[in-house]
Amino acid sequence: MKTNKQWRLAARPVGLFKDSDFKWQEEPIGDLGDGAVLVRVIYLSLDPTNKVWATTDSYLPAVPLGDVMRGGGIGVVEESRNASFAAGDIVQGMFGWQLYASVPGAGLTKLPKGAPLKAFMGVLGHIGLTAYFGLMDVGKPKEGETLVVSAAAGAVGSLVGQIGKIKGCRVVGLAGSDDKCLWIREELGFDAAINYHNENVSAALKRECPKGIDIYFDNVGGEILNTALALINLRARIPLCGMISQYTATGPVSGPANLSNLISRRAKIEGFLVSDYLPRAGEAIPHLLEWMQSGRLKFRLDVAEGLEQAPRAISRLFEGKNTGKLVVKVSEEPA
Amino acid sequence: MKTNKQWRLAARPVGLFKDSDFKWQEEPIGDLGDGAVLVRVIYLSLDPTNKVWATTDSYLPAVPLGDVMRGGGIGVVEESRNASFAAGDIVQGMFGWQLYASVPGAGLTKLPKGAPLKAFMGVLGHIGLTAYFGLMDVGKPKEGETLVVSAAAGAVGSLVGQIGKIKGCRVVGLAGSDDKCLWIREELGFDAAINYHNENVSAALKRECPKGIDIYFDNVGGEILNTALALINLRARIPLCGMISQYTATGPVSGPANLSNLISRRAKIEGFLVSDYLPRAGEAIPHLLEWMQSGRLKFRLDVAEGLEQAPRAISRLFEGKNTGKLVVKVSEEPA
Repeated sequence: MKTNKQWRLAARPVGLFKDSDFKWQEEPIGDLGDGAVLVRVIYLSLDPTNKVWATTDSYLPAVPLGDVMRGGGIGVVEESRNASFAAGDIVQGMFGWQLYASVPGAGLTKLPKGAPLKAFMGVLGHIGLTAYFGLMDVGKPKEGETLVVSAAAGAVGSLVGQIGKIKGCRVVGLAGSDDKCLWIREELGFDAAINYHNENVSAALKRECPKGIDIYFDNVGGEILNTALALINLRARIPLCGMISQYTATGPVSGPANLSNLISRRAKIEGFLVSDYLPRAGEAIPHLLEWMQSGRLKFRLDVAEGLEQAPRAISRLFEGKNTGKLVVKVSEEPA
Repeated sequence: MKTNKQWRLAARPVGLFKDSDFKWQEEPIGDLGDGAVLVRVIYLSLDPTNKVWATTDSYLPAVPLGDVMRGGGIGVVEESRNASFAAGDIVQGMFGWQLYASVPGAGLTKLPKGAPLKAFMGVLGHIGLTAYFGLMDVGKPKEGETLVVSAAAGAVGSLVGQIGKIKGCRVVGLAGSDDKCLWIREELGFDAAINYHNENVSAALKRECPKGIDIYFDNVGGEILNTALALINLRARIPLCGMISQYTATGPVSGPANLSNLISRRAKIEGFLVSDYLPRAGEAIPHLLEWMQSGRLKFRLDVAEGLEQAPRAISRLFEGKNTGKLVVKVSEEPA
């Protein structure tokens, strides 16, 4: 009998995650129900929204205390009582923070062969779809426009900026260290990068966006959103992807004082969730794949080794320490 | 020779308007230039955005200190050196806060006969177009949805709510006195009215919007916007028409803390200005006229008598004392 390893949610996190918010548990795996599939998790995705899931009801109900922490990932089917899946299939789904997941077949997507597995945690997974649809469908970039991206060295931001370049925009990224700025400018081809820890963001944005901001792709909310609002052009679009600066707040946060600029500039702030776009993934994947294969869309995984590391690793997101997509490698890829 | 009477902007207003922000001036009217038209102003429109014009560059440059205060209105042509206009024509334009305006013909619109002149200050003027396009084009109401309107007894809000009813929405209005609430509920047909001075707005909105808020038509910004954001439904639309609660702020204002709800509800806040819709006025006017004539779209002018009253009158807007569209009657309508 196989033994499962799990992180269960032990407490509602306040501010940053703490180790004590999670409880390690090992337990035998029960019998597989009819129609279910036993998946050994290979990669577990860590995302800013995990903080929301652990804290409060939102677009999904909060994870109940005592349950396995919610998380998406990629795994390999080890046993199947579902005709659609066979042992050895590589699948994507919501497996939770655990080594083994017994899941109904309905929530699983079988991954095609041919692309490296890691790509499905980045460009070809929910991250790539978030960047693609958030920018293309909400941001609607036009050639020659100026696109500003926050958390630009993060999973989504790094892709958004590169897609913006492919679409002919001037792309300016905001990131929290010189190393990150160097990466997005030199390796990813951003036109400019601003280290928001070192620079006056308002002055730097004015310098790097001489024609103003047409699209501000926001991953962080807070003061940077407010600063960007002051510099938006007529009919600017602000796709609201995340507000990581607010997720660890322990008291009331303050919204952007410059909101009234939306009126004088006839501009909009629009929130979106990638889950709404999953039925349209087929529109995006061929582009993402082609751009990846031609080297125009690069991505980096920031890999924590071992499920044991998950609580420590997720804190790095909120401390701004990851570069690229943060994942936990839970077990080995099949040979 | 005729003598003009004018209010000139004497100081940048801080907080509420004060009488000393304006200076009364009487001066002879000079010769009319080639192509120009001399208009005697009949009605002067007072709008929340006047505060913006007097204070700062925005979608229009700030009114220069010493200039006649900017303002729209309706008047009668007394003298014309422009082939398109003749004495006796009734025209709409930006005449400023004065009795006589010498204006180039280009900025004038000749008003059709048949409807009462006052209607062009309300339903059939920029107010009606603001309500129509803001609701229809940005808000996009669908039958059975819940529409919440702030400043609902104001010029725009009172029309928005009635158009919402015509379009089959449940309409809930927020206003600042019991008299205003009575008017919008009993005379204008709103489903519910909330006096935000007397009630807990959050609790009252929950009670009156049992199915949540699909459209929040915002004229005020500030705390009410924040409260509404907490109650929006999936894919809610927030047309941002004005933020009168912020226009008299003397220090930094705080934005809505609940902005992140835009993400989980996949919702948007979108600013708009009626000036963008003027070329499309022909789409709206036939509807507005029909609704007005059939009694389904009522409006009220709140009339201050005499140009001398303009500075006092405009303060009433920011004190929440007007009901319906605030105008100054500068001179008599032609018989």
